Amino acid sequence: MKNHVVLAFSGGLDTSYCVVYLTRVKKIPVHTVTVNTGGFSPDELKDLENRAMELGAEKHVNIDAVAEYYDNCLKYLVYGNVLRNNVYPLSVSAERVFQAQIVASYAIDSQAGYLAHGSTGAGNDQVRFDLMFMIMAPDIPILTPVREQNLSRQEEISFLREYNINFDWQQAKYSINRGLWGTSVGGAETLTSDGELAEEAYPTPITQTEPRKISLEFKTGEICGIDNNPVSKPVEVIGLLSEIASPYGIGRNLYTGDTIIGIKGRVGFEAAAPIIILKAHEALEKHVLTRWQIYWKEQLANWYGQLLHEGNFMDPVMRNIECFLEDSQKTVTGKVHVKLMRQHFDICGIESPHDLMNQGTSAYGETSGDWSGEDVRGFARISANQNKIYYKVNPKK
Amino acid sequence: MKNHVVLAFSGGLDTSYCVVYLTRVKKIPVHTVTVNTGGFSPDELKDLENRAMELGAEKHVNIDAVAEYYDNCLKYLVYGNVLRNNVYPLSVSAERVFQAQIVASYAIDSQAGYLAHGSTGAGNDQVRFDLMFMIMAPDIPILTPVREQNLSRQEEISFLREYNINFDWQQAKYSINRGLWGTSVGGAETLTSDGELAEEAYPTPITQTEPRKISLEFKTGEICGIDNNPVSKPVEVIGLLSEIASPYGIGRNLYTGDTIIGIKGRVGFEAAAPIIILKAHEALEKHVLTRWQIYWKEQLANWYGQLLHEGNFMDPVMRNIECFLEDSQKTVTGKVHVKLMRQHFDICGIESPHDLMNQGTSAYGETSGDWSGEDVRGFARISANQNKIYYKVNPKK
Amino acid sequence: MKNHVVLAFSGGLDTSYCVVYLTRVKKIPVHTVTVNTGGFSPDELKDLENRAMELGAEKHVNIDAVAEYYDNCLKYLVYGNVLRNNVYPLSVSAERVFQAQIVASYAIDSQAGYLAHGSTGAGNDQVRFDLMFMIMAPDIPILTPVREQNLSRQEEISFLREYNINFDWQQAKYSINRGLWGTSVGGAETLTSDGELAEEAYPTPITQTEPRKISLEFKTGEICGIDNNPVSKPVEVIGLLSEIASPYGIGRNLYTGDTIIGIKGRVGFEAAAPIIILKAHEALEKHVLTRWQIYWKEQLANWYGQLLHEGNFMDPVMRNIECFLEDSQKTVTGKVHVKLMRQHFDICGIESPHDLMNQGTSAYGETSGDWSGEDVRGFARISANQNKIYYKVNPKK
Amino acid sequence: MKNHVVLAFSGGLDTSYCVVYLTRVKKIPVHTVTVNTGGFSPDELKDLENRAMELGAEKHVNIDAVAEYYDNCLKYLVYGNVLRNNVYPLSVSAERVFQAQIVASYAIDSQAGYLAHGSTGAGNDQVRFDLMFMIMAPDIPILTPVREQNLSRQEEISFLREYNINFDWQQAKYSINRGLWGTSVGGAETLTSDGELAEEAYPTPITQTEPRKISLEFKTGEICGIDNNPVSKPVEVIGLLSEIASPYGIGRNLYTGDTIIGIKGRVGFEAAAPIIILKAHEALEKHVLTRWQIYWKEQLANWYGQLLHEGNFMDPVMRNIECFLEDSQKTVTGKVHVKLMRQHFDICGIESPHDLMNQGTSAYGETSGDWSGEDVRGFARISANQNKIYYKVNPKK
Repeated sequence: MKNHVVLAFSGGLDTSYCVVYLTRVKKIPVHTVTVNTGGFSPDELKDLENRAMELGAEKHVNIDAVAEYYDNCLKYLVYGNVLRNNVYPLSVSAERVFQAQIVASYAIDSQAGYLAHGSTGAGNDQVRFDLMFMIMAPDIPILTPVREQNLSRQEEISFLREYNINFDWQQAKYSINRGLWGTSVGGAETLTSDGELAEEAYPTPITQTEPRKISLEFKTGEICGIDNNPVSKPVEVIGLLSEIASPYGIGRNLYTGDTIIGIKGRVGFEAAAPIIILKAHEALEKHVLTRWQIYWKEQLANWYGQLLHEGNFMDPVMRNIECFLEDSQKTVTGKVHVKLMRQHFDICGIESPHDLMNQGTSAYGETSGDWSGEDVRGFARISANQNKIYYKVNPKK
Repeated sequence: MKNHVVLAFSGGLDTSYCVVYLTRVKKIPVHTVTVNTGGFSPDELKDLENRAMELGAEKHVNIDAVAEYYDNCLKYLVYGNVLRNNVYPLSVSAERVFQAQIVASYAIDSQAGYLAHGSTGAGNDQVRFDLMFMIMAPDIPILTPVREQNLSRQEEISFLREYNINFDWQQAKYSINRGLWGTSVGGAETLTSDGELAEEAYPTPITQTEPRKISLEFKTGEICGIDNNPVSKPVEVIGLLSEIASPYGIGRNLYTGDTIIGIKGRVGFEAAAPIIILKAHEALEKHVLTRWQIYWKEQLANWYGQLLHEGNFMDPVMRNIECFLEDSQKTVTGKVHVKLMRQHFDICGIESPHDLMNQGTSAYGETSGDWSGEDVRGFARISANQNKIYYKVNPKK
Repeated sequence: MKNHVVLAFSGGLDTSYCVVYLTRVKKIPVHTVTVNTGGFSPDELKDLENRAMELGAEKHVNIDAVAEYYDNCLKYLVYGNVLRNNVYPLSVSAERVFQAQIVASYAIDSQAGYLAHGSTGAGNDQVRFDLMFMIMAPDIPILTPVREQNLSRQEEISFLREYNINFDWQQAKYSINRGLWGTSVGGAETLTSDGELAEEAYPTPITQTEPRKISLEFKTGEICGIDNNPVSKPVEVIGLLSEIASPYGIGRNLYTGDTIIGIKGRVGFEAAAPIIILKAHEALEKHVLTRWQIYWKEQLANWYGQLLHEGNFMDPVMRNIECFLEDSQKTVTGKVHVKLMRQHFDICGIESPHDLMNQGTSAYGETSGDWSGEDVRGFARISANQNKIYYKVNPKK
Repeated sequence: MKNHVVLAFSGGLDTSYCVVYLTRVKKIPVHTVTVNTGGFSPDELKDLENRAMELGAEKHVNIDAVAEYYDNCLKYLVYGNVLRNNVYPLSVSAERVFQAQIVASYAIDSQAGYLAHGSTGAGNDQVRFDLMFMIMAPDIPILTPVREQNLSRQEEISFLREYNINFDWQQAKYSINRGLWGTSVGGAETLTSDGELAEEAYPTPITQTEPRKISLEFKTGEICGIDNNPVSKPVEVIGLLSEIASPYGIGRNLYTGDTIIGIKGRVGFEAAAPIIILKAHEALEKHVLTRWQIYWKEQLANWYGQLLHEGNFMDPVMRNIECFLEDSQKTVTGKVHVKLMRQHFDICGIESPHDLMNQGTSAYGETSGDWSGEDVRGFARISANQNKIYYKVNPKK
């Protein structure tokens, strides 16, 4: 084992503090690792590298994990139509857990002496990093300077100035977290129970208001095309759809939920592509899955979302659930028509070779060629049996 | 027991046929019963009575069941945030089941010889009527002339003409079902898997587009006021909110789901007030309930909605679930701020004396005065135990 | 399509009646099919064939489906520890559903004009046959002479005598249904809510009382050996274990449950091998699976058992659940020690390379080398947060 | 606030150490509190008081909480048929949580400066005490000397000897925990994954082997009589039944499960009365509840047991679940016949005015006077619809 520390690095104030503190005060060589799950452009990654080296890191590594992130995680969130509390696509949660996993792997491979993250003691991310590091790399001690020292932003900035690090640390009004599966927006209004985010809080201004119809193509549950243009990779469709739909102001919302640490938290987000994909996928499923498939998928997917959100991605039950979800997608192939409008969208309908609707000679509320009135009467008579007996034995007063 | 038949009467073609057929062909005196669960105005009820008598009914009864409907049914749908398939507030389902229950009671009280409903063999309502009648009045035979004879609309019209019943039976493009908890719209586009309802299909045209902020007041789970005007009865708030919000085109949607008879069905609806109330109530709950209350409420309420939808309202488990839901509402008191916009709305935030957010000296992602970094590390270490052991015993390859 | 009928044939009074009635009265050639899922010996199968031909069948087919039955059905009942109402291993239910599936396949392959089963209108089997036939062979009409004519046993016997069929139809006191996964015993005491089955009702008399220790070997969830003798096929272990354990009177019980037709039913059974295997398998799982694997397996497996019991084996959600269950069995490998005694048994313990117990330097209630008291205090402090806040906001009176 | 510490006192080595350590070393006056939930005789309580005073406590209090324990906790375990992992009646878990609650109340009422418990860092009890103290008395600091100092038994004994405390601390082979709802037995064999407890480990030797029939009476879910002798209080029936059944060796078992701290634990127990009551109650329910009542009761009760086991008794969802369970018991009235035998028992049957079995003119598998074969065929035809369509659209290969 070597003696360097592997630090999950975002380039923000907290992780910058960690680089300097660990290098200069603790005298431990720092390897900064940035895992790109879709939130960083090539330029930003280059900047991150420069910044890390400037801060004194011995080495900086950018790891491109977009494809892996999609394959091992996002895909299942689509299969499961996962929206936490019926609202939030787990934009940050999924990403953070996945980044932690890759940082831990890097630490093991590089025989690191320590793992580190820059989380404070007030949020969910600290638990996600801790859990993943402890489970995947149980023999590598974890350093969390910001949390341990319970530092304020001002204290961190003062410390960095002492070491002549004078980046612009002016805190933005909102703390923005950009990722493939949505951008979270925290601060100001989200710190209270009331009040909407200001318009400027959202990364994409509304510049489109003209209604537009698009169609999304799914193949065995995965998004694979938009407007008849098949796209080779689902992550590309996500990007493309985001460009089309975000300027409508679609997919903005506030999420209130239970944090891992037991308090209630509220956060804003913008996630046009995820929300549209999830709702389109769900609409298609309503046509091609049986009622019990829909019922049990929902139970399992909610739990999947919860364990993921809370950092328990490694629990083997997650793999078991993924098997269920994967198998349920065999017939989830078809096209979904969506109409984009200012700040909302409609699911207009679906086309699928597996559509269970309007097969046979019956149509809901219209015709019933596949059964007789007698059949339904018999169905009702048998279905009524238990309650009929119940009220015979226990007359209603 | 007397020999009259009690017929659930809506005044439409099917139930009109039943009156004439049962009276003239079967020679059974008909008592028509219309249960108003909020969908009929006094004028409409008067018209229904006139029509019934004109068709040859021996007696017509209008039963006002709005308050009872709210108290014994709708209230629990609000407590449970019940949206079938995440979309549909059970506008028609709840109503029909409840109407059937009251018609059955009337039949028992009037010592009827028969019960009758006018449903065809192609929809859900036949099962709802059958089940309720069979369970509540097991000794009264059920007559279902339209279903039994498998009649087309044209055959019914021809039959009625023979008896000089010449109402305007011209079928509207859409079949509309108006109720307190929303209006369903079937026909045309809903008969296929694709295509949105035409604008004119919706009962309320969009005449409002100017954003407006309103606040809804809840007391132990029940809606009890709007914009600081306390209203004595929840049903009045529902009516008032409907007037305010429907002209925005809010609460319109298409619902695709599994019918009781096993085929897929699709139906449009307009339900501005129900959708806003449910989402506002749910938002308030996210602040005042614990995570496990939210989790289990959702499980039970989904099931409640399903059994209700499928006509199993009498199962005693429904009463058990109502007890759970009722008890969960003790702290669901407060105000929810909502912003109405063209075809959509935002939940802006809540105020509640029971708000669990921002209590103590900690705030999500900001400060953590109620625990230390050490505490969270300990929490993570214990939480990681099982998976840490799992991967020690079963190394990841 | 040919014009013969394929009849699921057990050789009992009801199916014998069907052969004669269909052949002589309806003049339809009958192919009798007996699917052996483990309940018939070669001699019995030979007798069945002779009987069928004697009754007038045009053709009799014995289909050996033991291996298929285990692979496509029983295996999952073991994976899922499925005991309906915590008691019944689904001995008959699973078998009947599976037999119906194979009979339907045979009918399709032989281009039959009709399918037939001999069930009465009073039990579950009629629904299992109907559902499977209707789903798998929707174009083949189903004949159910005994149910349609609502015949009593005496009427059937009289009819058969007219055709000179004079088998010994003396009804046994108990109706016995022998299968690989247990033998059901109905009649006499089971027809009421009270009273145990008489000793002679059980097929295997108690001849062993001396305690005996055995060990069962599992490999990825499947039983694969007993007392250090690996057995090549799980069905052989089931047979072997049955021979060892049945003379102890183990696995006898009465099951009370809800039938598919809505009434309560009670039935006795003897299922020594299934009960021991299920409990041993479950004991092993408690050591090798995580808590959430155990939790979700139980939810899904209960539902699997219910759908199977009620004849819905073909629902695609069953395949999805099987995927989950299969994946959960990766580490369910090891040995379980069992002590057999008169009418009961103890699970003494397990050995497994995947055992999660006593790994590391901690032992429950004894030592805690892998964490500190501080860690647990931190764990408790964070875990207490939500309820601490709840009671601060809502003081307990 | 005063400056004394309130210590949950059992009289064992750990809590004795705490009294001396807190008094002599920390110089804090100690109030020892023993909450009797049914495990202590009057003599034992007197001894505990003497011991506490001898150890140096300023004050000792025995609190009789048997009735309260039953009313607020055990009753719901019976309603819910709660057996953790299908095996363990939560003998110790329920008791400990409840004791912690009462100790916390006493501390608040006596204005204590500190709360203390003697748990080590290796078990579940530490979390149960911590959680309850933190939630109920968030302003009172918690002292846990044994856990904090990570002491061995020998270290504790040596310390006590220094203060001339020379009780017989010889560790028994088994650690026994006696309570109203069962006695747990830990140590020796339970510390490994394999091996049964020695006969002498169980508190009650087997002295009865002669089969005996008894009947248990339930009223709205509560046990209220045995063998036709109504007993005024359920806790008395529990005691009486324990005396009758324990000498048969009934209710002995080993429980393996997930501890709160994430490791697997194994413990033996003897709980004749709880196991018989739970199984008798469940048998009665199978006759008087509908299938969906049984289904949902099981879901909720399992969760209830889990939260209780893990010390989360105060979560308000527990009160919500209790409301559901209470309401479900309205018809759970009747008599259950049980046959006691050596180490096992049979449920022979039930009698109840609410029995849903054999009402009407139908009996399972025998007669079907309440419906026709046509009715069941119709039932099957409608029930088959969805899967029939599914395989039409997605032919089975």
